[in-house]
Amino acid sequence: MTRPTSFADIAELCRDLPPPADDAAAAAQARQASLLKPPGSLWRLEDFAAWLARWQGQALPRLDRVQVIVFAGNHGVVAQGVSPYPASVTAQMVANFAAGGAAICQLAASAGARLRVIPLALEMPTRDFTTGPALDEAGFAAAVAEGYQAVVPGTDLLALGEMGIGNTTAAAALAAALFGGGGARWAGAGTGLDTAGIARKAAVVDAGLALHAAVLGDPLRAAAALGGRELAAILGAAIAARRLGVPVLLDGFVCTAAAAPLARLAAGGLDHALVAHVSAEAGHRALVAALGKAPVLDLGMRLGEGSGAALAIPVLRGALACHLGMARFAEAGVDDRG
Amino acid sequence: MTRPTSFADIAELCRDLPPPADDAAAAAQARQASLLKPPGSLWRLEDFAAWLARWQGQALPRLDRVQVIVFAGNHGVVAQGVSPYPASVTAQMVANFAAGGAAICQLAASAGARLRVIPLALEMPTRDFTTGPALDEAGFAAAVAEGYQAVVPGTDLLALGEMGIGNTTAAAALAAALFGGGGARWAGAGTGLDTAGIARKAAVVDAGLALHAAVLGDPLRAAAALGGRELAAILGAAIAARRLGVPVLLDGFVCTAAAAPLARLAAGGLDHALVAHVSAEAGHRALVAALGKAPVLDLGMRLGEGSGAALAIPVLRGALACHLGMARFAEAGVDDRG
Repeated sequence: MTRPTSFADIAELCRDLPPPADDAAAAAQARQASLLKPPGSLWRLEDFAAWLARWQGQALPRLDRVQVIVFAGNHGVVAQGVSPYPASVTAQMVANFAAGGAAICQLAASAGARLRVIPLALEMPTRDFTTGPALDEAGFAAAVAEGYQAVVPGTDLLALGEMGIGNTTAAAALAAALFGGGGARWAGAGTGLDTAGIARKAAVVDAGLALHAAVLGDPLRAAAALGGRELAAILGAAIAARRLGVPVLLDGFVCTAAAAPLARLAAGGLDHALVAHVSAEAGHRALVAALGKAPVLDLGMRLGEGSGAALAIPVLRGALACHLGMARFAEAGVDDRG
Repeated sequence: MTRPTSFADIAELCRDLPPPADDAAAAAQARQASLLKPPGSLWRLEDFAAWLARWQGQALPRLDRVQVIVFAGNHGVVAQGVSPYPASVTAQMVANFAAGGAAICQLAASAGARLRVIPLALEMPTRDFTTGPALDEAGFAAAVAEGYQAVVPGTDLLALGEMGIGNTTAAAALAAALFGGGGARWAGAGTGLDTAGIARKAAVVDAGLALHAAVLGDPLRAAAALGGRELAAILGAAIAARRLGVPVLLDGFVCTAAAAPLARLAAGGLDHALVAHVSAEAGHRALVAALGKAPVLDLGMRLGEGSGAALAIPVLRGALACHLGMARFAEAGVDDRG
């Protein structure tokens, strides 16, 4: 199957996932132990090298073909006044991505990564989730399929990002559905709400949770009812990457929430994904913890666009450079520990 | 004065430091506020851009000439059994820096930085500080001068690192002298001591503090009595960078302790330096906090060599790429907040 068209299709793609290449990871760890440094002294850089090895399936991973994909969508729930910016900004920002003027353009270039932007029916916002499901089954599956098919086999690393006015509200609702707690736990300032705005957003999330209470126990139906096209596409891309042996960097709150259903549908389903940074958006730290992840960066960013994911790419490049380029104790003529 | 030869000379270099270019920083902040993103959404990246502007003295900073300097020295205090590695490793690692096999070689190259390694009289270790001052005034000033003269005017960013078996003991003693607390507060595992080894190291630090109690209130005399040549050279380089308008990235525990006397000798003396990462070495987090700094990275590294400083360079490159390359709201055709 290359194009899922139903919840059942998507669930099937999440079954029988290829196992991690533990042999490659073990070989990478053994190599790390032989390198010219006190054992463990590069700590997470050593883990990153082994993680790349595990999910690329090779003890000597590479980062030649690094891809950033930003999915964009529009959200009917903006009618509830959950963002200080008008929905028109989504398409305007997509135009700026193409023109090279956005933060992600600079960060992707700085990281030596290719940037692809995929707008998803921006002229047709999802339904306001306080009045009905954001997407029906066919619409949700189509967006998942867009993301699924966007991942090119042979990609060495995939950084995922998003753009969509209103989508921190969708992400908060989805996080609540998957991990419990009401709107107050997951609603944050987004692009810049004040305290009253955040309270209103939390109430909107709670209204959505109440309306869709019957499907909250089903990760895919919950994602359709509360999410949005760019969130669904991120999920599809994460599934494809898992099946194709492509390690993933997730950006902030929206991106992490979007991919989270995969962790609920398959044990270890998101093990091929690192959370690139912890966002300043209120719910992100709790969401990252709920997924058992440790972010790479913690710089107070909350822009989205894949900006945090792109900024983490050079950290992985540094880790890989050490893994591939360092001498070994045995060949370096250095006295080992007494 | 281009070559200090006494404590008084060094103290004089720390007086009348050039003021920060607050106008350039303000212009950078104004530029950030006009860029195509919700205000503050890149958070620390915005601060990094303004920080580069402030210390380079230009609203549009650059990172074309980025230099990593690693100073190396040997320590008589290794006779007290404070390291699991023999002192011979210092010179062997310097040879590996030259051969390209060390972690810092990979990380500097990956960050697009030039690497210079400066060994300081490795054949002549400092005196064991439990038996007398590590360096006399002339020896200390000579090492400070080496560092001072190593900074090339026009450098856009200077990342500082060190190599020296035994130097976390020297750094712990210096940190204790500058910020209080005994050896137990500042002694850590270094390259890999066990619990008993750390306790022994703490006792060695306490012995040094007792022997040199009379000079602990004087940052420079304390640095001479307890530090080492590579620590003194880092201090000299930090002073030169401050005087030449070169922003500095400090590496981990040893590097931060080495530069700390500048913060004690002049209010805001280390404002031109960021702590690049917080090390896993026990005392570093407390030392960073004592200096009022927030590290860029937190990845559990504890290798030294300038490795953490080099890894932070691409984060600054990302921040600068956004600062220089992003479009402005006014020109991007994007609706501003309602």
